[in-house]
Amino acid sequence: MIDPRVASGLRDLLPAVMIPRERILRTFRETFASFGFVPIETPHIERMEVLTGKGAGSEEVLRQIFEVTNKGGTPGELALRFDLTVPLARFVARHIDEIGVPFKRYAVGSVFRGERPAKGRFREFVQCDFDTIGTDSRLADAETALVIYSALTAAEVPRFTIALNDRKILDGALEALGLDGKTGLVLRSLDKLNKIGRDGVHAELARPAEEGGAGLSEEQAAGILDFAEGGRGRTDVLDAAEARFGANERAARGIADLRAVARLLEAGGVPADRIAIDLGLARGLDYYTGVVFETTVDGWERFGSVASGGRYDNLASLFTPRRLPGVGASIGLDRLLALMEEAGALKGAGTAAPVLIANFPGTDPGVPMRLASALRKGGIGCEIYPEPIQVGKQMGYGTKHGHKLAVIVGPDEVAGETFNLRDLETRHEDRGLAWSVLEDSVRGALEVIEHRGASS
Amino acid sequence: MIDPRVASGLRDLLPAVMIPRERILRTFRETFASFGFVPIETPHIERMEVLTGKGAGSEEVLRQIFEVTNKGGTPGELALRFDLTVPLARFVARHIDEIGVPFKRYAVGSVFRGERPAKGRFREFVQCDFDTIGTDSRLADAETALVIYSALTAAEVPRFTIALNDRKILDGALEALGLDGKTGLVLRSLDKLNKIGRDGVHAELARPAEEGGAGLSEEQAAGILDFAEGGRGRTDVLDAAEARFGANERAARGIADLRAVARLLEAGGVPADRIAIDLGLARGLDYYTGVVFETTVDGWERFGSVASGGRYDNLASLFTPRRLPGVGASIGLDRLLALMEEAGALKGAGTAAPVLIANFPGTDPGVPMRLASALRKGGIGCEIYPEPIQVGKQMGYGTKHGHKLAVIVGPDEVAGETFNLRDLETRHEDRGLAWSVLEDSVRGALEVIEHRGASS
Repeated sequence: MIDPRVASGLRDLLPAVMIPRERILRTFRETFASFGFVPIETPHIERMEVLTGKGAGSEEVLRQIFEVTNKGGTPGELALRFDLTVPLARFVARHIDEIGVPFKRYAVGSVFRGERPAKGRFREFVQCDFDTIGTDSRLADAETALVIYSALTAAEVPRFTIALNDRKILDGALEALGLDGKTGLVLRSLDKLNKIGRDGVHAELARPAEEGGAGLSEEQAAGILDFAEGGRGRTDVLDAAEARFGANERAARGIADLRAVARLLEAGGVPADRIAIDLGLARGLDYYTGVVFETTVDGWERFGSVASGGRYDNLASLFTPRRLPGVGASIGLDRLLALMEEAGALKGAGTAAPVLIANFPGTDPGVPMRLASALRKGGIGCEIYPEPIQVGKQMGYGTKHGHKLAVIVGPDEVAGETFNLRDLETRHEDRGLAWSVLEDSVRGALEVIEHRGASS
Repeated sequence: MIDPRVASGLRDLLPAVMIPRERILRTFRETFASFGFVPIETPHIERMEVLTGKGAGSEEVLRQIFEVTNKGGTPGELALRFDLTVPLARFVARHIDEIGVPFKRYAVGSVFRGERPAKGRFREFVQCDFDTIGTDSRLADAETALVIYSALTAAEVPRFTIALNDRKILDGALEALGLDGKTGLVLRSLDKLNKIGRDGVHAELARPAEEGGAGLSEEQAAGILDFAEGGRGRTDVLDAAEARFGANERAARGIADLRAVARLLEAGGVPADRIAIDLGLARGLDYYTGVVFETTVDGWERFGSVASGGRYDNLASLFTPRRLPGVGASIGLDRLLALMEEAGALKGAGTAAPVLIANFPGTDPGVPMRLASALRKGGIGCEIYPEPIQVGKQMGYGTKHGHKLAVIVGPDEVAGETFNLRDLETRHEDRGLAWSVLEDSVRGALEVIEHRGASS
């Protein structure tokens, strides 16, 4: 016998997880589409050169790459994608003349990283990305945050907050403080504020460059930290930033842009208290150049951001001389689901077919087959128990799998062309209903059950 | 610059292909769910031992396997799955105690085979599988064909025919003809009837075993071919088969089972002329032991089967001593889409957002943002052009991307709180409509357009 385990760091997804997962993915796809984003798909396997091109991924990600070879293939030529952004850049460089700009795409797919296996970290996970490419517009910036708001709200994610910043403000402030040569190091440290706290970040910033720090003076480090920590709140923090750094041209543009985005989000119907300006938010990746977003679920901040992104100046510079600015974000489906499960916010893990039709011993199985087809034609999902075992056991199966109602047709019912309808929760049973009212009876009973669920 | 091409045998899927593809996948998932099938997901990467275990895949498939390694991993340990059946067997062996039987699962996912690249053959393609595991029931057999019928019908696949057989009939006939030692060879040849014709199959059957043939006498070969070719039609071919082979116990059981399946399909509402008994249908794979299916689109038989499957005695014998019979089928999404595209049956390749809202130069972009949110709240998808370029160019974008209507709000309209509604096909424009009737006006106009499309 071969051991049926999965490889280290990988996992099977069982129906109880998959059912809400598929429902949420469907909600995301519908939301993306309702904003005019269209789907694309790229292969799971890319040419190694595409994935490892200068700047495509961080060193850490490149260390984790899975190489792919087939018999007769050359080793080192192919690999599994580690995100959906590098494939998007390649895709856009290859197809943009055909597609044209602005190009609004979404993509949902597995990505692979050979991370050291740990609780809650998997070597294959799903990203849901959407991007607007070929425009510098503030409207596209705001729309990106609006899509996050709309998608998470539609998926019934518990109350969450979208943190917003514009990288130009941070860059301008560092410039004004004479630290623009150290932007990368400083931003990477600032991103750890939630993880390692002010003292930890201060230590990193003040550590000499030879020891891997940013080499700031105590005063500079404190100044940056005051700016980042003091810059959290509503749009009024932008007034304070303007008073301090408004003379710096880059910072001033960033402040104006972020004000425009916040105003457009309000016009789009996002409640002001769901948006938080966070002037310390950097999103380490070097390629962000404008607005940046992070989304945390209130009270569950320790899970980190569940939806992040930002504006970049040039998506596909590795693959084409054509400058392609854009803005986009990625929803981390696996992290979001783990959070929702722990928060008790994952509903409806049961079957999508609410009705179980019994396979009554000694009766013609053509009868349940006929009744099931009639119900499905009316849009009501139903399952027939495949074998004519004891009806009580069939009801047990229905209860376990989340069916709401059972339709039972024994020999007497076949003779009289009737059925019995059992509520699998209350065990109440209506008997002797005519086949001609099957669809109406089931629909009515399902409405009663739904109403009971909503009011309890 | 790095060349943005994909690796040999792989491909990008552009929006024009992906939009109908996603819609069809959604239809399939909804159909599976409406029969009580629940989703599972297994990793794209499996342990090599799981994939290459004796009998897991044909030699040809194993030659095509993609090996996967990460830095620090041992070469030869991991590989990409080449179908969804072997992972299902492993999954079931691992989780069946938790899940219980009957277990009805569906799975949609990419599989990988390093085939020699050729037109229309790709090294990554998507399978849509569904199976009922842990039951010997005829009802489950019939339901499998009914799901194929329902899913393809819901996806608006052109008229198709489901060919049905029961392997026990073929096995029994070969037994009765004294050829039961050669079943495998004979069945593999018979499967080629549509490809290489009667003469080709006859030659294979009559070729001596030393030369890779089945080594049948001319008479035996002709007898088998008469049986297979004469066995195509409605259920009356079963009467003929019974007259000839009814004395063979295995054949008799197969005939009775196939009659039961055909009768249940009729009860389930499948028109009799969409089902064809085909006593020569074998589905080469050794593990089929009962009913087998193949589905071809009428007039497009050269594309081969778009949905196939059958009953097996023991799914997971490599991984568990527990006997798990079942029945299932796989829809070949990529082949089906290629066929539908060539047949001109792929509809609605345009955006799912029917409305384009213009970004009028010199007006506040907050206005389109507000109108768009109002429409989406009413369930109407819409896209705002991201930049305030010339409105005519924005309309061109809408026409190209399949938007039906444009909402245009210039400075005069902002002042009067009105909008203009343009039909992007007829170019008719209603002007000066009040914001308060936005949703109703758009809905009404979309209905008119839909009606126009349906009646043209």
